[in-house]
Amino acid sequence: MHHPAPRHPRLDPLADRYAARTHGMKASEIRALFSVVSRPEVVSLAGGMPAVTALPLDAVGSMIGELVSGMGAQTLQYGSGQGDPRLRERICDVMALEGITDASPSEVVVTVGSQQGLDLVTRVFVDPGDVVLAEGPSYVGALGVFQAAEARVKHVPMDDDGLIPEALEQALIECRAAGDRVKFLYTVPNYHNPAGVTLSEPRRQAVMEIADRYDLLVIEDNPYGLLGFDREPMRALRARDDRRVIYLGSFSKTFSPGLRVGWVLAPLAVREKLVLATEAQVLCPPSLTQYAVARYLDTQPWREQIKHFVELYRERRDATLESLEALMPAGTTWTRPDGGFYVWLKLPHGLDAKLMQPRAVNAHVAYVPGIGFYADGAGQEYMRLSYCYPEPDQIREGVRRLARVIEAELDLHSTFDGVDTGTFRAVSGPQSPTGRGVEGIVGPANSDRYEDLR
Amino acid sequence: MHHPAPRHPRLDPLADRYAARTHGMKASEIRALFSVVSRPEVVSLAGGMPAVTALPLDAVGSMIGELVSGMGAQTLQYGSGQGDPRLRERICDVMALEGITDASPSEVVVTVGSQQGLDLVTRVFVDPGDVVLAEGPSYVGALGVFQAAEARVKHVPMDDDGLIPEALEQALIECRAAGDRVKFLYTVPNYHNPAGVTLSEPRRQAVMEIADRYDLLVIEDNPYGLLGFDREPMRALRARDDRRVIYLGSFSKTFSPGLRVGWVLAPLAVREKLVLATEAQVLCPPSLTQYAVARYLDTQPWREQIKHFVELYRERRDATLESLEALMPAGTTWTRPDGGFYVWLKLPHGLDAKLMQPRAVNAHVAYVPGIGFYADGAGQEYMRLSYCYPEPDQIREGVRRLARVIEAELDLHSTFDGVDTGTFRAVSGPQSPTGRGVEGIVGPANSDRYEDLR
Ligand SMILES: Cc1ncc(COP(=O)(O)O)c(C=O)c1O
Ligand SMILES: Cc1ncc(COP(=O)(O)O)c(C=O)c1O
Repeated sequence: MHHPAPRHPRLDPLADRYAARTHGMKASEIRALFSVVSRPEVVSLAGGMPAVTALPLDAVGSMIGELVSGMGAQTLQYGSGQGDPRLRERICDVMALEGITDASPSEVVVTVGSQQGLDLVTRVFVDPGDVVLAEGPSYVGALGVFQAAEARVKHVPMDDDGLIPEALEQALIECRAAGDRVKFLYTVPNYHNPAGVTLSEPRRQAVMEIADRYDLLVIEDNPYGLLGFDREPMRALRARDDRRVIYLGSFSKTFSPGLRVGWVLAPLAVREKLVLATEAQVLCPPSLTQYAVARYLDTQPWREQIKHFVELYRERRDATLESLEALMPAGTTWTRPDGGFYVWLKLPHGLDAKLMQPRAVNAHVAYVPGIGFYADGAGQEYMRLSYCYPEPDQIREGVRRLARVIEAELDLHSTFDGVDTGTFRAVSGPQSPTGRGVEGIVGPANSDRYEDLR
Repeated sequence: MHHPAPRHPRLDPLADRYAARTHGMKASEIRALFSVVSRPEVVSLAGGMPAVTALPLDAVGSMIGELVSGMGAQTLQYGSGQGDPRLRERICDVMALEGITDASPSEVVVTVGSQQGLDLVTRVFVDPGDVVLAEGPSYVGALGVFQAAEARVKHVPMDDDGLIPEALEQALIECRAAGDRVKFLYTVPNYHNPAGVTLSEPRRQAVMEIADRYDLLVIEDNPYGLLGFDREPMRALRARDDRRVIYLGSFSKTFSPGLRVGWVLAPLAVREKLVLATEAQVLCPPSLTQYAVARYLDTQPWREQIKHFVELYRERRDATLESLEALMPAGTTWTRPDGGFYVWLKLPHGLDAKLMQPRAVNAHVAYVPGIGFYADGAGQEYMRLSYCYPEPDQIREGVRRLARVIEAELDLHSTFDGVDTGTFRAVSGPQSPTGRGVEGIVGPANSDRYEDLR
């Protein structure tokens, strides 16, 4: 009404009216590439889509059909904002597999995927300008949430054993010195997206000890915890502390992402705020999908199905690591996940994964450039490879194509001067001075869109 | 970390860490009552639950079962943030019924109910302190969204023909004078929740003319537009202006609320921001429920089903109005909806609907007190009666009980001094000075929770 005239009236007459939180939002520069990626001749190691066709689709179909025919009055109706009580009970059973034995259904809030859980927790805790600690690299969807909340993200380096406790403490000391308000640590302890690493048992203890000492709230995001290839699920951080840890779970990777059912486990006072926040956002999660998950857990062999998924993903992980080993040029390094969906690959010195992306797509292979996983522009020499969706043969072909692209890049680069010996850890710090932010804290997350990167 | 010590460490050790936006959030004072309301002996005229059992549940069940068995690779998988393209096409067909003939599927964003649409639009436009204009009374879920966004709500009075254009212009002039940033007008033009009234055709023209003159953005929330009892759907505001109006739609009232499928129709530049915001919130809407709606629109007689719903709701509306007419004591007035779910009832002078609520529940009838529909504490003498869910006989019994409660209240009130002659319009202004806010603009929405009130 009495705002200055729009700068580009032809382009967007509303340009001067948007909320401040929208300013960091940008469309992906690689979105165009991703429409190319869905062409059948392209092997995509980019997406994080689970192998849902490995589910017993007929059984699940008739189960859901019967839920609607027999219980339409419930499954097609509004439900409670907190979520179906029966499902919340079954969620407590699932969490018990990771050592969380004291959770009560009253502390659980059902969400539209754990993504909504992350958004709700962030809305409840984060004011603009607050600091969030997160691994570097970190889940791109979390960076999007933090950006929308106008938080400043400070990355904490990782190595093959996950988040480095000393680096966490260092970050806390720096924030304290700078007078920053640290609202929480966001961490993915198991089979990290995108790094593929897992927080070791001694480090879990160390991280919780630091959290205690610094009175730090921890958001434990754990969609992959049951997808370990070689061992029993590790004990969750939440199993060690029920007051300081808020736990996010999801059925996206153990059952189906298309149902969008996740949850938050939080102390009652927080849970109460989360329910108010989700009511304002969606009124209630879909009833049908909640009933579908609860019925699935009640009547289908879901533990065996997870074992089936695990075998399938292990085979794909093996195909990935074997072909990387066999084909990658010297100077290329990568993590060795023992669960989950992702390998984090470091290019030989001087190469840039994002600049290389169009040539890779030309060679019919796709990946996600690493910079999407940092809030501060770091990660250029990295890429994420997902092995969850393509078949082993496709994976081998994809890695073969990728190796050729990297070799061609190396030939092109006269700057290439020998094998890089950097470790994963060595590069997790701020490699690329961006000129933005204070002491490694930056505002807007990277502009790559997580729809493309998920 | 370096915050002041929590005030109630025993109660909530995190009390000092929440974001500012949570401060206005409060649990409902009437929540306890509402657990009572679900007892079978209580006739509830409180909830806004559609009559989903009037759907052909067997047909819908087998349709959805087949979607999972036959198309599990799509229906159980992640989808795009903007929503399924096929569904977005069919949504354009639905909107054409209200005169919106120029909408393109690319301008549509599928949401988790129109509630999420409302939240997304608010997140994209509203900074803390911005002013939102909304009818008085207004949809309680919208007030919750505006509160979470820390907006200030200024109510614009209505009468039996809906929003009063002169009052809208007056509000705009006042805001201009006060230097307030008005982000948009939020309006429910058809079969208003809770007022039950519809914006007349001349007023639609007047409102759009004012919007033009004051460069005002309009959010048109229209879940009930196809549920008119006596006539063809009215022409949407969006059909009159495709740049100044953002349209919110929902399948909750025409098909099923438990699927949580709604949508936003917005100019492309806004749509782009909405997609980024929804990706940060939920990644993508559930695939299964989107496919279910698209398949329903493709294969089931959905127009005939809406006619069936309309007949059913008309019968319930008739039962409501007839028994109100027959039974209510003098001094009670109410609106006469010709579509939708709600009657807005004004108690005789001196009675307070919220104070009366426990006695009503004792008498086994429930309603929603009017103050939940105002951001400024007004509305004490009002209540919302929903006729959508109970059968006509229950409605008659419920109104009978309510009439007795009101009569008993009147007997109790020595302050009762004759028949109130106020019209609906006369009471929509600021009746109850609250001492908060500037010039009728207030901060936090009323604390009644819309889970209970929906
Ligand atoms: C670490 C992490 N957190 C959260 C999510 C969101 O999952 P959803 O919303 O499907 O539960 C993902 C999805 O890839 C993820 O990798
Ligand atoms: C006016 C209005 N808008 C929006 C909604 C939210 O509906 P949904 O999120 O189920 O689409 C409702 C529900 O009652 C409503 O009455």
